[in-house]
Amino acid sequence: MNPKRVGVLGATGMVGQRILAMLDNHPWFTVTALAASENSAGKKYREAASWQLDQPMPAWLGDMTVTGSKPDLDCDFVLSALDANVAGEIEPAFAAAGYPVISNAKNFRMEEDVPLVIPEVNPDHLDVIARQRQNRGWRKGYIVTNPNCSTVGLVMALKPLHDMFRVSKVFVTTMQALSGAGYPGVASLDILDNVVPFIKGEEEKIQVETLKLLGGFDGAQYQPAEINVSAHCNRVQVRDGHLECVSVELERQAEPDEIIAAWRGFRPAIADKKLPSVPTPAIIYREEENRPQPRRDRDAGAGMAVTVGRLRRDPILHYKFVVLSHNTVRGAAGAAIANAELLAAKNLL
Amino acid sequence: MNPKRVGVLGATGMVGQRILAMLDNHPWFTVTALAASENSAGKKYREAASWQLDQPMPAWLGDMTVTGSKPDLDCDFVLSALDANVAGEIEPAFAAAGYPVISNAKNFRMEEDVPLVIPEVNPDHLDVIARQRQNRGWRKGYIVTNPNCSTVGLVMALKPLHDMFRVSKVFVTTMQALSGAGYPGVASLDILDNVVPFIKGEEEKIQVETLKLLGGFDGAQYQPAEINVSAHCNRVQVRDGHLECVSVELERQAEPDEIIAAWRGFRPAIADKKLPSVPTPAIIYREEENRPQPRRDRDAGAGMAVTVGRLRRDPILHYKFVVLSHNTVRGAAGAAIANAELLAAKNLL
Amino acid sequence: MNPKRVGVLGATGMVGQRILAMLDNHPWFTVTALAASENSAGKKYREAASWQLDQPMPAWLGDMTVTGSKPDLDCDFVLSALDANVAGEIEPAFAAAGYPVISNAKNFRMEEDVPLVIPEVNPDHLDVIARQRQNRGWRKGYIVTNPNCSTVGLVMALKPLHDMFRVSKVFVTTMQALSGAGYPGVASLDILDNVVPFIKGEEEKIQVETLKLLGGFDGAQYQPAEINVSAHCNRVQVRDGHLECVSVELERQAEPDEIIAAWRGFRPAIADKKLPSVPTPAIIYREEENRPQPRRDRDAGAGMAVTVGRLRRDPILHYKFVVLSHNTVRGAAGAAIANAELLAAKNLL
Amino acid sequence: MNPKRVGVLGATGMVGQRILAMLDNHPWFTVTALAASENSAGKKYREAASWQLDQPMPAWLGDMTVTGSKPDLDCDFVLSALDANVAGEIEPAFAAAGYPVISNAKNFRMEEDVPLVIPEVNPDHLDVIARQRQNRGWRKGYIVTNPNCSTVGLVMALKPLHDMFRVSKVFVTTMQALSGAGYPGVASLDILDNVVPFIKGEEEKIQVETLKLLGGFDGAQYQPAEINVSAHCNRVQVRDGHLECVSVELERQAEPDEIIAAWRGFRPAIADKKLPSVPTPAIIYREEENRPQPRRDRDAGAGMAVTVGRLRRDPILHYKFVVLSHNTVRGAAGAAIANAELLAAKNLL
Repeated sequence: MNPKRVGVLGATGMVGQRILAMLDNHPWFTVTALAASENSAGKKYREAASWQLDQPMPAWLGDMTVTGSKPDLDCDFVLSALDANVAGEIEPAFAAAGYPVISNAKNFRMEEDVPLVIPEVNPDHLDVIARQRQNRGWRKGYIVTNPNCSTVGLVMALKPLHDMFRVSKVFVTTMQALSGAGYPGVASLDILDNVVPFIKGEEEKIQVETLKLLGGFDGAQYQPAEINVSAHCNRVQVRDGHLECVSVELERQAEPDEIIAAWRGFRPAIADKKLPSVPTPAIIYREEENRPQPRRDRDAGAGMAVTVGRLRRDPILHYKFVVLSHNTVRGAAGAAIANAELLAAKNLL
Repeated sequence: MNPKRVGVLGATGMVGQRILAMLDNHPWFTVTALAASENSAGKKYREAASWQLDQPMPAWLGDMTVTGSKPDLDCDFVLSALDANVAGEIEPAFAAAGYPVISNAKNFRMEEDVPLVIPEVNPDHLDVIARQRQNRGWRKGYIVTNPNCSTVGLVMALKPLHDMFRVSKVFVTTMQALSGAGYPGVASLDILDNVVPFIKGEEEKIQVETLKLLGGFDGAQYQPAEINVSAHCNRVQVRDGHLECVSVELERQAEPDEIIAAWRGFRPAIADKKLPSVPTPAIIYREEENRPQPRRDRDAGAGMAVTVGRLRRDPILHYKFVVLSHNTVRGAAGAAIANAELLAAKNLL
Repeated sequence: MNPKRVGVLGATGMVGQRILAMLDNHPWFTVTALAASENSAGKKYREAASWQLDQPMPAWLGDMTVTGSKPDLDCDFVLSALDANVAGEIEPAFAAAGYPVISNAKNFRMEEDVPLVIPEVNPDHLDVIARQRQNRGWRKGYIVTNPNCSTVGLVMALKPLHDMFRVSKVFVTTMQALSGAGYPGVASLDILDNVVPFIKGEEEKIQVETLKLLGGFDGAQYQPAEINVSAHCNRVQVRDGHLECVSVELERQAEPDEIIAAWRGFRPAIADKKLPSVPTPAIIYREEENRPQPRRDRDAGAGMAVTVGRLRRDPILHYKFVVLSHNTVRGAAGAAIANAELLAAKNLL
Repeated sequence: MNPKRVGVLGATGMVGQRILAMLDNHPWFTVTALAASENSAGKKYREAASWQLDQPMPAWLGDMTVTGSKPDLDCDFVLSALDANVAGEIEPAFAAAGYPVISNAKNFRMEEDVPLVIPEVNPDHLDVIARQRQNRGWRKGYIVTNPNCSTVGLVMALKPLHDMFRVSKVFVTTMQALSGAGYPGVASLDILDNVVPFIKGEEEKIQVETLKLLGGFDGAQYQPAEINVSAHCNRVQVRDGHLECVSVELERQAEPDEIIAAWRGFRPAIADKKLPSVPTPAIIYREEENRPQPRRDRDAGAGMAVTVGRLRRDPILHYKFVVLSHNTVRGAAGAAIANAELLAAKNLL
């Protein structure tokens, strides 16, 4: 298979950098175009981007030239790490021009003809692409989105439980990492010796995206899952890794060992496609009484595995547990790349 | 009124230090005895204690001599900051020897003849002292306890709601400060760039203490409040101040402005006693979308006020909000001192 | 004495806020005007400023109206917390209009007719004001500056040594607090689990300001002190308090106890003026082997005292020691206020 | 070549863990014995050690059985990560029993017949082993040591300068990581929002070890380098990576580009031995004005490269610069392993 040629939109930002780092030596994709805002256009990537990752910038990347975000990139599809304030215009322009757009932006996630997808959770939702093209008059292009960084870990942990026991209620309190706010993002004076119990729009995203992701698609329409979700979101002084305390109500009774078995036995429908960025296992259950922890578990499965722990009975609902996922890998860059891999495996790129 | 003479048990530890700092210039009490473990006995306090507070050690304190923890202290009553592993023996010995013991330790909190008291919440629970003395054959001495540091803020915030609307269910996720684990306590390598989603015994304490504190006392027996409480406890990299995300179900319907009015209008039954360490107001509601925060709100009311914010409707229960209280002041040292003040005001010291 | 009426320039920034907090209940000064950028003009201070201090905004302050930075303020003098990029224009405009300008900005510090003053160090340098007015054609107004935040603590510690033993060489490595970079300032992602060994322009400021501060003024010209200064500057994850490791060469031989006696016996020339913000003692020497520390010593003397410790012989120069001072109090807001107090005491306001 | 069989002393501690992680898949060595204190003896490593590294425990390691620290281990040589308080007895016992002991402990570093070695700096110092055996009556065994964690980076940066320009004076101020204090080590309450300007014994170690490392060995005796070294040591809130601000005097004049060329062109005498843990390049010079930084540069060369930056002229001595090295890899575990590799390459194991 010839590698597919990727263009990255928003290539200089935090998520763009992470996407590019994850595409270094990617077996299926090769980066052929980098786009960013007009004042980066024409510069070498090395000069345009303030590289924030601890791993060094890949050698091939520094000398590539960044262009503006016009839909004339030399590539087969685009990965979009655009900010929400520009994604609303630029992404449809690319789709209209014939590019598949795999986006991390929030703008189109909840539109009824746009798939919001985690490969291990709801790959069938991609079937709405046909309707999307029809609705919007796009012949070749389309938009596929991945969820918000704080939604991914939660939904991954809920998926096997929902499949086996039907989840009906979910309480979740997040403790979210600083990298989720981008760069420069959170001021050091705001978070040193502190917690900020508010992240704009975050609770709403978790509450609605979860229902779409765990809901059905009947070939024509989404059926949101019938789950009540209540979220409290907090910013803590952690670099990467969103930690979430979760309580759930299940419709079907389950013993603790059945719950753990559901996580450990989780085999996603797309497992046989062997998508390069989807880890095996995708969900890790740890027995220690004080895990998962952001610093110790965020890099599990190269940052793409979701770690669960502390399963115990809940005095109000049925069970409580703790979930951890890497917010810029599994929750953003890796989520988009995994979606691209799924589309490639389905010959949709 | 002559000042009452106080002895402090566990005087050299973190909570003991905080008690002593708060008793500096106390209008009703004067410190006359300091007790600690045998290997501190005979030393000047200055040498026995590794002073951890940022405020300097009060001048009168450094030269006082520390004694062992035998019940022969020259004082009218004792404030106990003892560790749980020794409080179980030492505190009853003092009570048996005729000392009122106002304790921060967990050992006796849930005993049926021991009051677990927050002055603003359940001062009437002190009436069980008579029965305690009878049960245990103590003529003058007794034990009175205050709650765990993570329980206090929660119960203070629930109290006006429970009085006016009856609370029936409570979800709480805590983000607790390092000082709650004592000194040296949490290793820096465990918490840098991290959250630890586990604190031994903490969830259980919140779940049972809340019911006793908000429950009734009919002159003979406690009636635990009929509330289901579910707690998730986490340690975060904050020095002082426990932050808690709370969702509640109320039996009586209430509009948001009624909830806020309940907090702002809260006038505890003991308000007219003008206890020196009980602040007015005891509960502060803040309007900002991102408050309370540990570093910015923990010192409200000299660390004795509880700050609440972010009231909003909850998709599963009725309301959610955020609570913040200073864990070593309102949650430990100040809690014990306020109890002592209440006992003094009732002529029980 | 009627209180002098103060206007604060740059009133909404970090240093402006700290100045206003320190002027709350000031015995000599009362705030009558607040100026900031045009887009704050016309707003209540409460709305114009994002209050960053942990102590609450003084009640009188929130309702005051902020104006633009034109020299028509209703006040006897101005304290300037302006950024360097605007101070260069605005401060002379105020001086030309007849206002004494006491500035924290770096712009005019090194001009030959502008006093750079620490009250305890070089109060006589104020005598250049007459020449400044003459040079610039200002009849009533003038500009007086205080040093950079990292210079103040160093120079305070050097002053008694220079007076008694003549300092000839100084090595200093700073570990500077986040608040020194203003708000939002340092991004949390840049400093979590990190040190940044660079602060733009900081090493140069220490190297030149020290010489002017410790130098002489013969009534006509400054004589820079004959000291070689070498500075390394670093940003560390501390909120307030610049820590500095210092090695010095002295021209006259001194025993360690003489050095410590020089610090402890330091009595500034302006001591009898009893300036309200100048603490007694101004220099504290601590005996512990691991002090001073930023969090534990920055608030000594209400943030205006400088703490020194760890005096020991240096294998290359003569002695080494550690200095700590609060960077936004002693190093900025308090430095300007103390200069204003000195000017008031000299009837220059 | 058959892999050499390694025993690890102090296998359960922080440095022991790091050694074991670095020996996972080592091309020349295989771990055959683990020793620790008596109360670990008999346990599986998994149970005996509280694993602190973020990378998972290697699979082969968890089931190995830990023994006590008697010199009857099944191995060809031992790597010692023992604490100084036990190394003084145990290490000579192993050497006397015929084991080469490659030690990270401080106990024997400065003895006149014990080599203190960094492979890239002074490999010839190993020649003293013959004399050591003779002095101590050991036939096969011996002790070889590596320097203190804060000495390694400094000496690596000085080595090319000393070779080419003769270093005569060195000022160094360290900002050292938490992992240097072991686990649990520094209490979180001591370092949050703080710097501790003291590390017991550290300044002395830098001052003497540097002279031995850069000194000569004439076949019979060490000649300490003729360098004056002055060190200030600080603990900062960084997990791994010691940052050091250095000023140097050189005997031979050098232009900045010559200094940088000395670092970049540094080719250690042992380069052709291709020791697996010695990186190429061993010294990295970065051009950015704000590098090296602990979090961004500590993993260069798998943690074994030393990063230098910010070269500039010094107003007192000749040059100043900043050095960064990973304290538990290059400064401890990797230092010992690299020494073992050098000994293996010299057929001394």
